[in-house]
Amino acid sequence: MQPFSSENNITVRLRYPNTIGKLSEVTGAIAEAGGRIGSITIVRTEKTHIIRDFSLNAASKAHASKLKSTIQGVPNVEMIDTWESNYKLREGGKLEIVSTARLKDYVDLSMACNTELSRISSAIHKDQSAARVNTIRNNIVGIVTNGTSVLGLGNIGSAAALPLLEGKAVLFKELSRVNAFPICLDVKDTASMIEMVRAISCTFGAISLEAIAAPACFEIERELTDAIDIPILHDNQHSTAAVMAAALINALKITGAAANNLRAVVCGAGAVGTACARMLLHLDIGDIVVCDRKGAIHAGRNDLPPHKRWLADNTNSEKRAGDLSSVLEGSNIFIGAAGANILRPSDVRVMEKDSIVFVLSNPVSEIDPEELEDFAAIVATGRSEYPNQINNALCFPGLFRGLLESRAQRVTREMLRAAAKAIADVIPESELRPDYIIPGVFNDLVASAVSNAVVAAANSPRFPRTPVYFEY
Amino acid sequence: MQPFSSENNITVRLRYPNTIGKLSEVTGAIAEAGGRIGSITIVRTEKTHIIRDFSLNAASKAHASKLKSTIQGVPNVEMIDTWESNYKLREGGKLEIVSTARLKDYVDLSMACNTELSRISSAIHKDQSAARVNTIRNNIVGIVTNGTSVLGLGNIGSAAALPLLEGKAVLFKELSRVNAFPICLDVKDTASMIEMVRAISCTFGAISLEAIAAPACFEIERELTDAIDIPILHDNQHSTAAVMAAALINALKITGAAANNLRAVVCGAGAVGTACARMLLHLDIGDIVVCDRKGAIHAGRNDLPPHKRWLADNTNSEKRAGDLSSVLEGSNIFIGAAGANILRPSDVRVMEKDSIVFVLSNPVSEIDPEELEDFAAIVATGRSEYPNQINNALCFPGLFRGLLESRAQRVTREMLRAAAKAIADVIPESELRPDYIIPGVFNDLVASAVSNAVVAAANSPRFPRTPVYFEY
Repeated sequence: MQPFSSENNITVRLRYPNTIGKLSEVTGAIAEAGGRIGSITIVRTEKTHIIRDFSLNAASKAHASKLKSTIQGVPNVEMIDTWESNYKLREGGKLEIVSTARLKDYVDLSMACNTELSRISSAIHKDQSAARVNTIRNNIVGIVTNGTSVLGLGNIGSAAALPLLEGKAVLFKELSRVNAFPICLDVKDTASMIEMVRAISCTFGAISLEAIAAPACFEIERELTDAIDIPILHDNQHSTAAVMAAALINALKITGAAANNLRAVVCGAGAVGTACARMLLHLDIGDIVVCDRKGAIHAGRNDLPPHKRWLADNTNSEKRAGDLSSVLEGSNIFIGAAGANILRPSDVRVMEKDSIVFVLSNPVSEIDPEELEDFAAIVATGRSEYPNQINNALCFPGLFRGLLESRAQRVTREMLRAAAKAIADVIPESELRPDYIIPGVFNDLVASAVSNAVVAAANSPRFPRTPVYFEY
Repeated sequence: MQPFSSENNITVRLRYPNTIGKLSEVTGAIAEAGGRIGSITIVRTEKTHIIRDFSLNAASKAHASKLKSTIQGVPNVEMIDTWESNYKLREGGKLEIVSTARLKDYVDLSMACNTELSRISSAIHKDQSAARVNTIRNNIVGIVTNGTSVLGLGNIGSAAALPLLEGKAVLFKELSRVNAFPICLDVKDTASMIEMVRAISCTFGAISLEAIAAPACFEIERELTDAIDIPILHDNQHSTAAVMAAALINALKITGAAANNLRAVVCGAGAVGTACARMLLHLDIGDIVVCDRKGAIHAGRNDLPPHKRWLADNTNSEKRAGDLSSVLEGSNIFIGAAGANILRPSDVRVMEKDSIVFVLSNPVSEIDPEELEDFAAIVATGRSEYPNQINNALCFPGLFRGLLESRAQRVTREMLRAAAKAIADVIPESELRPDYIIPGVFNDLVASAVSNAVVAAANSPRFPRTPVYFEY
């Protein structure tokens, strides 16, 4: 599928009987009228009907009109809404910093900028925790990167990562009203990165580490968690793992299989693959094998850096060796976290019948998701054009809102598990279906469900306080 | 004068004949009715009338009403506006980060957060200057501190400086629509500060260094100006010096004295005092003597650190020695930049008749300004309750807007001088008066005048490009 152009995009919201074949009737009509289809997402399901949004790319405005009337001609399909979704880039970035105080005169000025602020400064000087109530630290996340592992672009440097951090700040604000500000640090070595993030942490209420390559990301997260008194999280690892877990929890509700009877294979031992493997351990999956470029990671290998050594010691109890497809044989769950187009269909066809396949890479999957349809029971991807998108934006906005609201000092595994369960539970069991195991990013129940779950986990005296970082 | 409470404040805007005694008639009526007066500022002057804002503190709402009717009873006084100026502190800081993009659906999401942003990231990776057009760097100032010299509070640490930086960000936004974000760096040594600001500079379009003690502030500014490709300025030094210069330019228009015939004394050799002394040199004041705690700085002293050694070599050509009052004898200009209450009236009474006295300390002056009234021709202070406030907020909002708009790479002395002249010229010569030599902070002509002057200086091929930093 080609990427969308940003011209002549429309979205149509359709309601139709939830019967097999109806979706392909709609997509067939669109194709016949020459329309390109972008994402197809589930808005909600009713007893007998389903409501979906279809993003369409037309050749012109006239063509967009023609597409709409074609769709309206499909029997039993009701177009309940439609809108233009053209997106134009603004010059000058995506964030504006606005004042919550209005200054009208010299008294305001003196109060806003001298007297009152001096009073708050003195209070913080006496007790640092006052800053988390009376300053922007109350509701602000610093999104910090060194630009060493930018999604789809690799090690492009921190200056070039800024647009992606801005996009993330937009998601924070739009999805959970959290203020977030991007910080690009032009620094490469791990020790300097740790020291700089520590030094800057007194500006924020929480820190989201972003786009940092493994294994430095593990050390940076761990050292900083112990060094500073606000929550810090390498989001690429943990939010992705939490959303993967939510999808898996719901997938298992559909298949009915018991977690501890299942064998899982994780392809990729970078930041995301490692976090997913650790999450599968927490979900009590029976057997987990992680593969890197050289094949299965097992205790018998002697080429392993420390973090992979940990994986070897804590997964793959049968010490299975060999390449990906040889360990995939007999597996029930596959998590792809390894990058674009690294799999052939034959690699994965060796899995057990009715297997669960999640390919997380984005914008291009590890394997074309359409190649998986005929043998996998449930497929999820990292992409918005397919059903079941494993998008970390389902987790981080609510997670950080919960961290800020609870004034937690660190992120715990218990919070992350609570977030995963909350995301899964947004879909009532009666509505679960193989192509609807995970809510959409615009489902406005998600962020508050996650935030509430995190606050509950932060406040529960029963909950342990296991830091989320990777200790190896 | 006691500080205002934040309850029951009102501001009244009055228009009355601009004759001697009328102001005291108004203030007398207010006093008789039991009202406390805060600031009295000039909004504008007309041929025969003057318009001023009076900030009043009443005991209750009823008392505020009574004050208003009392004022309306004063003959020939017209109350042209009135408003409540209560200021309530908000929990949670003064800044909000909002998205300029609105996300409605998955296509927006993909465009805003993936496709388009990846494209911009790749462009920046190829050419870093693309970031100054297509990201927030287009219009954002980082306000960076180490908290070593916070106004009125001293070395309170970076965490406690955050409220004051927030206040500054509010002024940036409200006065010139510049986005500004506070960065507190928990670091004390100069080398680390320089390295961290350098590393973070790829997030911003310009950097305002704030609340950094001398002499580290000089080195930090100088090293960073040479290390990074965006403008960086220690604002406490230069904006204050520029506004002082604007006030002095207008004061000399009133007294008619020629700059090179005048003797000036600067009290204080910290960041502000040093910057003012350097500015007086650029204004061609005939003779300048800077005093520190030990008295006049002259070439014969052997206790001078490098930046004071520079001052000794470049000012005080007559090598005058002695304490402040001995060098003040025969001087025409006094600039106080040394902190609260360090002067006695007898110290300054030795100056020449019709002298110009600027006491910059804030919120408490070097000497009570009321003690100066009977002998100085023109008085300016750092305080909003008196006429002629030398407030750096007259300079930095427009200065940084000009730096961002011109995409300048450094701040030059020529820009700063242009800014000073622009501030001075906001008041037409016909309206200049001893108590109106400098526009008020809310005069909305100031920021655009400064910005335009800075852009012109940045673009002028005739202008030299002398960096503004202090090289000693």
